[in-house]
Amino acid sequence: MIGLGAMGGALAGAFLTAGHPTTVWNRTPGRAGALAERGAVPAGSAAEAVAASELVVVCLSDHEAVRETLTPLAAQLAGRTVVDLTSGSPLDARDTADWADRHGVAHLDGVIMTTPPGIGRPEVLQLYAGPRAAFDSARPALAALGEPLHLGEDPALAPVYDTALLGLMWGTLTGWLHGAALLGAEGPGGGVPATSFTEVADRWLTTVRAFMRGYAPQIDAAHYPGDGFPLSLHSSTMDILAHASELRGLSADFPQLLRELTTRAISAGHGEDSWARLVEFIRTT
Amino acid sequence: MIGLGAMGGALAGAFLTAGHPTTVWNRTPGRAGALAERGAVPAGSAAEAVAASELVVVCLSDHEAVRETLTPLAAQLAGRTVVDLTSGSPLDARDTADWADRHGVAHLDGVIMTTPPGIGRPEVLQLYAGPRAAFDSARPALAALGEPLHLGEDPALAPVYDTALLGLMWGTLTGWLHGAALLGAEGPGGGVPATSFTEVADRWLTTVRAFMRGYAPQIDAAHYPGDGFPLSLHSSTMDILAHASELRGLSADFPQLLRELTTRAISAGHGEDSWARLVEFIRTT
Ligand SMILES: NC(=O)c1ccc[n+]([C@@H]2O[C@H](COP(=O)([O-])OP(=O)(O)OC[C@H]3O[C@@H](n4cnc5c(N)ncnc54)[C@H](OP(=O)(O)O)[C@@H]3O)[C@@H](O)[C@H]2O)c1
Ligand SMILES: NC(=O)c1ccc[n+]([C@@H]2O[C@H](COP(=O)([O-])OP(=O)(O)OC[C@H]3O[C@@H](n4cnc5c(N)ncnc54)[C@H](OP(=O)(O)O)[C@@H]3O)[C@@H](O)[C@H]2O)c1
Repeated sequence: MIGLGAMGGALAGAFLTAGHPTTVWNRTPGRAGALAERGAVPAGSAAEAVAASELVVVCLSDHEAVRETLTPLAAQLAGRTVVDLTSGSPLDARDTADWADRHGVAHLDGVIMTTPPGIGRPEVLQLYAGPRAAFDSARPALAALGEPLHLGEDPALAPVYDTALLGLMWGTLTGWLHGAALLGAEGPGGGVPATSFTEVADRWLTTVRAFMRGYAPQIDAAHYPGDGFPLSLHSSTMDILAHASELRGLSADFPQLLRELTTRAISAGHGEDSWARLVEFIRTT
Repeated sequence: MIGLGAMGGALAGAFLTAGHPTTVWNRTPGRAGALAERGAVPAGSAAEAVAASELVVVCLSDHEAVRETLTPLAAQLAGRTVVDLTSGSPLDARDTADWADRHGVAHLDGVIMTTPPGIGRPEVLQLYAGPRAAFDSARPALAALGEPLHLGEDPALAPVYDTALLGLMWGTLTGWLHGAALLGAEGPGGGVPATSFTEVADRWLTTVRAFMRGYAPQIDAAHYPGDGFPLSLHSSTMDILAHASELRGLSADFPQLLRELTTRAISAGHGEDSWARLVEFIRTT
């Protein structure tokens, strides 16, 4: 394990919990103490750490730090697998992958969709991109961190999935927060508590997930039958959201975004299509 | 069952499936045929339908239709329970509740969060607001439609929950669609299929739901500790979403909404707080 920051330390801890012999290194010494007490072997140098294992997991602050740390170790890394869990751009991921390729290093770019306390929980998403063979051989060890998923061979897939999934999170949390504000302003005495709304919201997301799964094949087929829930119906109920928000003095930004998006599609003649048709109006600005 | 439109017909069908003796009425005759074959009793008038049962379920196009239909039946309805599943505003719900109160009619305002084909599925949300006693006595019959939840005594809660939950749906579906567009534009050959992204997105929502449940008590306490995931971190990763969207020619509207919201909170000095702090910036326009 190269890098023992907040995240790297949690990763090393999870490897130890799962019983994997773990050698650790950090640029600034003195961060391995608690891990060493739990059985980790502190390495005196990055080269020494790399020599200790077939699998080298890297988690540093940024891509620059990764390049600086790995470049001098190319010879030692040849024939090993580097799993890079440092956040970065698609270009960063491809850059490291190209470098690894040139030096005979197997490379996976990874993203763990949680904060350090979540590491090791089985439901936590761990996403990896890079050669399938490297994923398959690293998988048993990576399973210590959560359940590993392989996205595909292109290393850029990991950061793009990361961004796309965060977008889904922000969309969900924005809609939820708007709902909490709406119900919090309902009736006397501070309205409905956010915890009460959230119990219902949590159950409702089961249905929303089913919509999502139903719409996905429509996008891939570029065919968007509206069935019982066309954009025209979304649009009229969005007007209610906008009006209710206004009445309660809430920000109009979120309802307005929704209305603009659906209005664009309806004006283009797609009022009887499903929500999935909107993807074409996200694609063209 | 008063009203045999797309939704009313599905409701009557679910009552029959569950084995409840069901009398049906529709303004325009001739819509009861298929239901009668399954054992429903067609009533010759709304008054006759009402006389047949303790529980009167109403689902008409709008509140005006409900008022028109129920007003002449006040005497027959006294002592019975009316469950109104017609969509309407909070004012509509309170109006019907007041009318019912004046005439000794028990009244629940309800919302079923699905389209007609979903009626009867156990995971479908059915939300009711009004007197608890009326809910408790209607519940065994309503269970034919899905699992009934009681929101509280104020009848306006049903339509406001409806709107708030639709907002959550639109937020989720907007974030998901943006992610699908992002990944669809990634790499050669049409990028990542929406179905592949959606498999991962669906799993990721398990974590997002956990965030939601974690943030809800923060809103109720008006105390928003950022722990490992402060607004400043959201903000920097939102920049990545905005940039990635721009690179792929996607609409900037959604990332911009997110950035504006977080920027407002960070500028006000809340960068180290959690996402839940944003509720205060939705509350004040
Ligand atoms: N924390 C989270 O919630 C979270 C969540 C998802 C993803 N991530 C990602 O995980 C990565 C690490 O985050 P973190 O929270 O662990 O950060 P952190 O606590 O700030 O740790 C940064 C680590 O990088 C090392 N480092 C920085 N520059 C270096 C260089 N030039 N050469 C060698 N080592 C260098 C640091 O070593 P020193 O001790 O010597 O400074 C330290 O070990 C980041 O890319 C972050 O975006 C974090
Ligand atoms: N369909 C959905 O996906 C869905 C989902 C959630 C909520 N809802 C709500 O459910 C309600 C019904 O929707 P729907 O899809 O069943 O609509 P629909 O198919 O258009 O049926 C409307 C019903 O209302 C009756 N009606 C209209 N005006 C009337 C009047 N003045 N007096 C007596 N009856 C009258 C119609 O009778 P006639 O046959 O005589 O015209 C018909 O039975 C609406 O409030 C809708 O918003 C629907």
